[in-house]
Amino acid sequence: MSERMRIVFIGAGNLATNLGTALKDAGHEILQVYSRTEKSASALSGHLQCGYTADIDKVVYDADIYIFSVKDSVLGQLAAALEKGREKALFVHTAGSMDMDVLGDRRRGVLYPMQTFSKLRPVSFKTIPCFVEASEKTDSDLLKSMAGDISDSVYELGGEDRKYLHLAAVFCCNFTNHCYAIGSDILERHGIPFRVMLPLIEETAAKLRSLSPREAQTGPAVRYDRNVIDKQMGLLSAYPHFQDVYDIMSRGIHEMSL
Amino acid sequence: MSERMRIVFIGAGNLATNLGTALKDAGHEILQVYSRTEKSASALSGHLQCGYTADIDKVVYDADIYIFSVKDSVLGQLAAALEKGREKALFVHTAGSMDMDVLGDRRRGVLYPMQTFSKLRPVSFKTIPCFVEASEKTDSDLLKSMAGDISDSVYELGGEDRKYLHLAAVFCCNFTNHCYAIGSDILERHGIPFRVMLPLIEETAAKLRSLSPREAQTGPAVRYDRNVIDKQMGLLSAYPHFQDVYDIMSRGIHEMSL
Repeated sequence: MSERMRIVFIGAGNLATNLGTALKDAGHEILQVYSRTEKSASALSGHLQCGYTADIDKVVYDADIYIFSVKDSVLGQLAAALEKGREKALFVHTAGSMDMDVLGDRRRGVLYPMQTFSKLRPVSFKTIPCFVEASEKTDSDLLKSMAGDISDSVYELGGEDRKYLHLAAVFCCNFTNHCYAIGSDILERHGIPFRVMLPLIEETAAKLRSLSPREAQTGPAVRYDRNVIDKQMGLLSAYPHFQDVYDIMSRGIHEMSL
Repeated sequence: MSERMRIVFIGAGNLATNLGTALKDAGHEILQVYSRTEKSASALSGHLQCGYTADIDKVVYDADIYIFSVKDSVLGQLAAALEKGREKALFVHTAGSMDMDVLGDRRRGVLYPMQTFSKLRPVSFKTIPCFVEASEKTDSDLLKSMAGDISDSVYELGGEDRKYLHLAAVFCCNFTNHCYAIGSDILERHGIPFRVMLPLIEETAAKLRSLSPREAQTGPAVRYDRNVIDKQMGLLSAYPHFQDVYDIMSRGIHEMSL
């Protein structure tokens, strides 16, 4: 492993939980967890066997790295609140869409693990692509080797490209899941259990191991089969949002296939 | 296995190839393959070791079941063309969105395997949910046991519900894949290989084994985080279609989360 780091987590959500666990398992030292919510801070600290606080003034001063894993909107103010007395430490955030400069004019960096985390499902960090950058070359090297302790896929990526990466992830994860949610809703209204859809969903994802999404595209929209499309739009007449999605996706599929 | 059937395939596409292979492997007899395209008919017949023809007048008369696996738009005319002299046989189609009555006023049924097929990827039929219906109770029993020879998940489902099932599949497969295609396009423009997205895509699908799509939904749209949403819409300003998808999906995710 890389040099053992003394780490404080600012934030105790799903990402902090998964990342903290992986870093601890890899041999790094988690000193403390801070969360605005005492219950969350306490739960994660129990898991990581470290200290915790819900008082920003009680965050320890002697960590090498402070990892901010909080909502985008509070990143700046939390970093500013912790600035004083920690000038020598490295501040790092884990947000895909945020510039590292939000952490202030100081030693700063980003470690963005691109995965969807939920408290109930443990994930293996080994296969999660991690994207790092830092204001100093020595710090980006440090983050690369620390990320390399927990993941087999570590990339250096600048903030501008990372924004687009995060945006692509929104399409591939969040919007994909919304398509599942609409499918599930339609099935539910017709008394069909959603689990019948799982083999199709899993094969649609697995196909991408051998075909690009463009090559893998199937369905009536590829040929813009008006007959099927009009009939299916009709089936959705009671659900304007589902119709809107159907219409825009069908047009897009057809245009991309040309 | 169920009683051995003598089967003719009308159509030689991906679905016919996969279904024909599974039925043959289960011990049924494939007599012949018909396709308008001689090359396709010949290729599949070689695979299934049976006869083939590209001449509709040369389709054999002595099959128990004719399985129509062709484009929706030609189903009716092909069934009509083959009607005469085959009054005692069972006509079956494999289309999710078509009524069985398109096959005419005769012994008719549907066997809809809900999966996405591509010539290059062999799929195991065992896990594919198959939905059957027929005009006669004896025929729906027959189709159920024949489907049971190749799949562990066989359901009887009427035509009206099957249309909604197929529509749900369009959302969960075709539209999901379009989200992947947009993500892939965004990455390509920034020189990032699409394969970095695969662990996220696979976990997004795998999550559904333990959470419903509503429970699994994450991302800025859940809270309708205007700050992130406006910034991401801005990143897409050169791509009106991607913006349209982003906008409609974000609104839908937020509404469903309320």
